[in-house]
Amino acid sequence: MTPAEIVAKMMEKDFFSQWLGIEVMEIRPGYCLLRMRVREEMCNGFSIAHGGISFSLADSALAFAANGHGEQAVSISTAIDHLEKVEPGDILMAEAVELHTSRKLARYRVEIFDEAGAMKAIFRGTVYRTGKTWEQLSIKN
Amino acid sequence: MTPAEIVAKMMEKDFFSQWLGIEVMEIRPGYCLLRMRVREEMCNGFSIAHGGISFSLADSALAFAANGHGEQAVSISTAIDHLEKVEPGDILMAEAVELHTSRKLARYRVEIFDEAGAMKAIFRGTVYRTGKTWEQLSIKN
Amino acid sequence: MTPAEIVAKMMEKDFFSQWLGIEVMEIRPGYCLLRMRVREEMCNGFSIAHGGISFSLADSALAFAANGHGEQAVSISTAIDHLEKVEPGDILMAEAVELHTSRKLARYRVEIFDEAGAMKAIFRGTVYRTGKTWEQLSIKN
Amino acid sequence: MTPAEIVAKMMEKDFFSQWLGIEVMEIRPGYCLLRMRVREEMCNGFSIAHGGISFSLADSALAFAANGHGEQAVSISTAIDHLEKVEPGDILMAEAVELHTSRKLARYRVEIFDEAGAMKAIFRGTVYRTGKTWEQLSIKN
Repeated sequence: MTPAEIVAKMMEKDFFSQWLGIEVMEIRPGYCLLRMRVREEMCNGFSIAHGGISFSLADSALAFAANGHGEQAVSISTAIDHLEKVEPGDILMAEAVELHTSRKLARYRVEIFDEAGAMKAIFRGTVYRTGKTWEQLSIKN
Repeated sequence: MTPAEIVAKMMEKDFFSQWLGIEVMEIRPGYCLLRMRVREEMCNGFSIAHGGISFSLADSALAFAANGHGEQAVSISTAIDHLEKVEPGDILMAEAVELHTSRKLARYRVEIFDEAGAMKAIFRGTVYRTGKTWEQLSIKN
Repeated sequence: MTPAEIVAKMMEKDFFSQWLGIEVMEIRPGYCLLRMRVREEMCNGFSIAHGGISFSLADSALAFAANGHGEQAVSISTAIDHLEKVEPGDILMAEAVELHTSRKLARYRVEIFDEAGAMKAIFRGTVYRTGKTWEQLSIKN
Repeated sequence: MTPAEIVAKMMEKDFFSQWLGIEVMEIRPGYCLLRMRVREEMCNGFSIAHGGISFSLADSALAFAANGHGEQAVSISTAIDHLEKVEPGDILMAEAVELHTSRKLARYRVEIFDEAGAMKAIFRGTVYRTGKTWEQLSIKN
């Protein structure tokens, strides 16, 4: 399966990424670029995007980039720093870049920025590679 | 304003916490206990809760506990480790506990567990205290 | 091998923990309590303990607690928040507590406090369990 | 005071960075490149560099880069992922790059690599800007 086929299969049942309105702009093994538009219903009590919105976008980018290698990868440790407030109507981009891989682990950086290129949040994630291929997973389901 | 009044005011416009179905079980300055039920539309492509769901619940718990002191607090650095998968129908609890405060910063730990007490995720957050009281914020809005 | 035997074997060649003056106060599988005294040569340009000192103490506590299970464990992701300054002459304690284990991973919290019980830093770590027992490692060396 | 003057002043009393053998290769406001050689006495029980060594090098790089702006900055939250083992005799470089600044906070990424350019660890740090200039600090001491 190609990275695009894997991500299409993931997105098909990823109802939360669908609710977020995530669009896959680019996908390669170890790399992913996503796009979404912030809506009113994603805001917190300060009328800015809830911290969980940027996190969720980054977490999806991590999952797609990591699984794009063709082997199932699950997130084990993630962190996010919120830099600037995000408002309803903002278009957010998330770019996941692979920093390092070993047999069982891979490390990613995800940057969240708006259409003008202003950085909104920085995310970092480690995934565990289960050893199951997407071919095996697809037969099972 | 009491912690309960502040959180009621925050929840009133926190449309994302409302979408998540978050209920405030207990609130004191520096402490918060939340509860929510995981729905199908919160799942990712593996049919388990998206990583952003536990994060968002923990992030709300952090915000409520930190603002409960009566001074506006904004999250500046957070991290989460996912320990066990969370499934649709699961009831999640998030307990935010204050670890340390200084004049401008406060540190929190948030644990996510299910109704049986099984730990699902561990979250850690640092907030910046802006110096604005909720009395001042309320007059402004 | 008992946890105490494993840690004795680790400490024997752990020249940096020796330089730090680390003493093992208590060791059980998944738990460790360490003690050290901060010296002038551990300070940074502000004449307080360099951030790396508390980190190193916590990292040793993590390694000892995690390897105390009898299986080799290596640190893959760690984070520390410095809460209060540490000064030359201070006695630091580090207590590592296991939060969760799975077949390949384990999670720990390490708290750094002084003799009066004042919390100085909070550390969090994830280790990867290699599957090699300390019996196997000891025969090899 | 120039960034180089500030770092010279910091290094003068930074006995731990001196013990590590840290050399300042390049310093600009918000940027720093350091170099050190790993010695036997920096190793842990597995005869590889203790996790605290890479952390300490990265933490010094963070401190120098952040204080290079001329205003005192203190580390409040840091994290490190160890990617590859570091051995005695290895030359380590640490490059600190500023990702974002606001009035009271600044964010940095520090990468640790060897002379061949192989990445050994990734570090991330947030500093709090105290508002005191290095001119003020220097008069006081």
